[in-house]
Amino acid sequence: MPVLVMKFGGTSVANLDRIARASKRVAREVANGFDVIVIVSAMSGKTNELVGWVDETSPMYDAREYDAIVSSGEQVTAGLMALRLQEMDIPARSWMGWQVPVRTTSAHSAARINEIPTDNIAAKFGEGMRVAVVAGFQGLGDDGRITTLGRGGSDTTAVAFAAAFGAERCDIYTDVDGVYTTDPRLTNKARKLDRIAYEEMLELASLGAKVLQTRSVELAMRFKVRLRVLSSFEEYNPEAGTLVCDEEDIVEKNVVSGVAYQRDEAKMTLISIADRPGIAAAIFVPLAEAGVNVDMIVQNISEEGRTDMTFSCPVNQVARAEAAMQAAKTSGEINFHDLVADTGVAKVSVVGIGMRSHAGVAAKMFDVLSREGINIKIITTSEIKISVLIDRKYMELAVQALHDAFELEKAA
Amino acid sequence: MPVLVMKFGGTSVANLDRIARASKRVAREVANGFDVIVIVSAMSGKTNELVGWVDETSPMYDAREYDAIVSSGEQVTAGLMALRLQEMDIPARSWMGWQVPVRTTSAHSAARINEIPTDNIAAKFGEGMRVAVVAGFQGLGDDGRITTLGRGGSDTTAVAFAAAFGAERCDIYTDVDGVYTTDPRLTNKARKLDRIAYEEMLELASLGAKVLQTRSVELAMRFKVRLRVLSSFEEYNPEAGTLVCDEEDIVEKNVVSGVAYQRDEAKMTLISIADRPGIAAAIFVPLAEAGVNVDMIVQNISEEGRTDMTFSCPVNQVARAEAAMQAAKTSGEINFHDLVADTGVAKVSVVGIGMRSHAGVAAKMFDVLSREGINIKIITTSEIKISVLIDRKYMELAVQALHDAFELEKAA
Repeated sequence: MPVLVMKFGGTSVANLDRIARASKRVAREVANGFDVIVIVSAMSGKTNELVGWVDETSPMYDAREYDAIVSSGEQVTAGLMALRLQEMDIPARSWMGWQVPVRTTSAHSAARINEIPTDNIAAKFGEGMRVAVVAGFQGLGDDGRITTLGRGGSDTTAVAFAAAFGAERCDIYTDVDGVYTTDPRLTNKARKLDRIAYEEMLELASLGAKVLQTRSVELAMRFKVRLRVLSSFEEYNPEAGTLVCDEEDIVEKNVVSGVAYQRDEAKMTLISIADRPGIAAAIFVPLAEAGVNVDMIVQNISEEGRTDMTFSCPVNQVARAEAAMQAAKTSGEINFHDLVADTGVAKVSVVGIGMRSHAGVAAKMFDVLSREGINIKIITTSEIKISVLIDRKYMELAVQALHDAFELEKAA
Repeated sequence: MPVLVMKFGGTSVANLDRIARASKRVAREVANGFDVIVIVSAMSGKTNELVGWVDETSPMYDAREYDAIVSSGEQVTAGLMALRLQEMDIPARSWMGWQVPVRTTSAHSAARINEIPTDNIAAKFGEGMRVAVVAGFQGLGDDGRITTLGRGGSDTTAVAFAAAFGAERCDIYTDVDGVYTTDPRLTNKARKLDRIAYEEMLELASLGAKVLQTRSVELAMRFKVRLRVLSSFEEYNPEAGTLVCDEEDIVEKNVVSGVAYQRDEAKMTLISIADRPGIAAAIFVPLAEAGVNVDMIVQNISEEGRTDMTFSCPVNQVARAEAAMQAAKTSGEINFHDLVADTGVAKVSVVGIGMRSHAGVAAKMFDVLSREGINIKIITTSEIKISVLIDRKYMELAVQALHDAFELEKAA
């Protein structure tokens, strides 16, 4: 029988009623003729409770013990949903990560999946089991201990199972009903997309549209897993949600698919730094080692052997970045006049695979912002994305103006 | 290094403060030179919460899923205590049942331990780990799934580890400070025992002194594990608690060690039943099949081929017993005139290995009860125990009178 993977996030299994509701959706797919692999998160709030206990017990905790503790939340949900399905006369069984086993690296709390052997679960499907309820977010390391994939890792678990089992589709049930052209809280013109290409979703996911974990989209793209994002709180219909799929499966495309933003950015500038070969490495290696996620980078034109270097990072990493730069200055690795941090900026991006074949998107974007009197501080571009850093107070205005200008409220 | 097993029950690890307190006791034993195996229960209340969810989801639940869900409580405590010990600079690691692995039968929710291989944990001790924190109450069945040992199973886990590792001692930390000559709520003359023999503890455990799970005492007796029961809420001293040990290790013995009771008993009498070979089996096999725990049995002298058969069982099993007997009558397996249930009785017992060498204990017991005007309904005896069934309203009086008569307030 064809296999379908269904993933339910924490709010979709927050209590016994919601587990029952999710189970009904699973039952419908069983009736449709699928063998179903369900990936579950912990009941919402549970993981935070467990993480809170860990933090209070040991602020610099051992990640192996963190994983053992935190993974227990998914274990409970998996068992409860298996029981609920059995009550509905559907042969179901729960599986912990170590039982499958979901083999991962031993990088505790941030493990990556190496392999998912299909034989155990496939054998049970062969014996008449119709649903395997798998605890998401967890696996088994080479050290024989429980690992976790990092927060949101259940999406990645789901896509990896879909790839391993050659599933028909991977349905991600969440608390939003799909992927939108932009955040509906910023403009009521935001429109749900029926389809979106992997590449676009990847840009949107990493730009802060928190619908899917970035890694799960990468994995889906690599293994061509058809991914559907849909709400577990709305009436089911076969066309619900947004399908994340291959570019070729999208017939009608807008040039721009969406406008994304990241609110809490900071811009940091190293003023008058000696411009010599290797200076970029001397700056960005220490920043990476300090755990600073540098995003955009601009180097000004060099004058008399000195230049300014500007980069952006999340606001809450500014202190770490400053400490790393001062340390590098003290040790003589770099030499700069001053370090200026602007913590009042935000990033706005337009994303669309259509840009590849349409010139003028960047020009139009800059023109729109200019008409609104919004000054651009940094620009970066990729094949399918243009991002600008602007003052935070103009962020909503920029998103709305770009959404209007690219007519995203209209389907292609 | 010598190994010590320490077990902490649910109230001793009820929250992070108590886990920290228990960890200090562990640290003291590490400083004393022991490699320590800690067995932990779930934080008190957790198991009940999980069982509640299971019951609500599936009243006739699949025990395999019950085990997967309910075992998660101990997993959390084990991880948290390992972290707490690490914070105190003690090399510690958590172990789930499946990681050791604690091999059990596949009788889910009521599994029995078959084997505890020591190599994994012993190897870690060899590498410098000083504490293995093991999730109690759980194991791994032949079917590759998590099993649980039944409520209170963490005591059994602790004793089994002590036996497997040839531990110096197994300390059971609980919310009482030891084993008493009788329930201190019934008489303020109740005295804590410094030592008690396995056989005595076994009689007391099965008679309702809920300090230790009966199976854990059986196991301790079989493998000569020295078991100490002590409070995790009192200041530590090396003589704290009660040591459950071999008879030979107790130098000064009272003839009677304790007075136990079971409050909610019932007496049932089958009146005028045909007395023929096999009649006892015809009565008690259906009762066992109906899940009735028959305790005391008395058969009256037969007259004209008919007799009365009396037995006792817990009050809450009377309805089940009546149904089983009426069914057996209807099917013609047994034939009786009437079935009379007296649900107002209690059992009182005196226990002591000294009885083996002292005659007259029974006579003294009956005399004491008679002086108090207490009528005895059934008597049963073993080598080290005499039990009587009496009207429930006299239970406290009987316990107090026997405690006085055998001078249990005085040490031997």
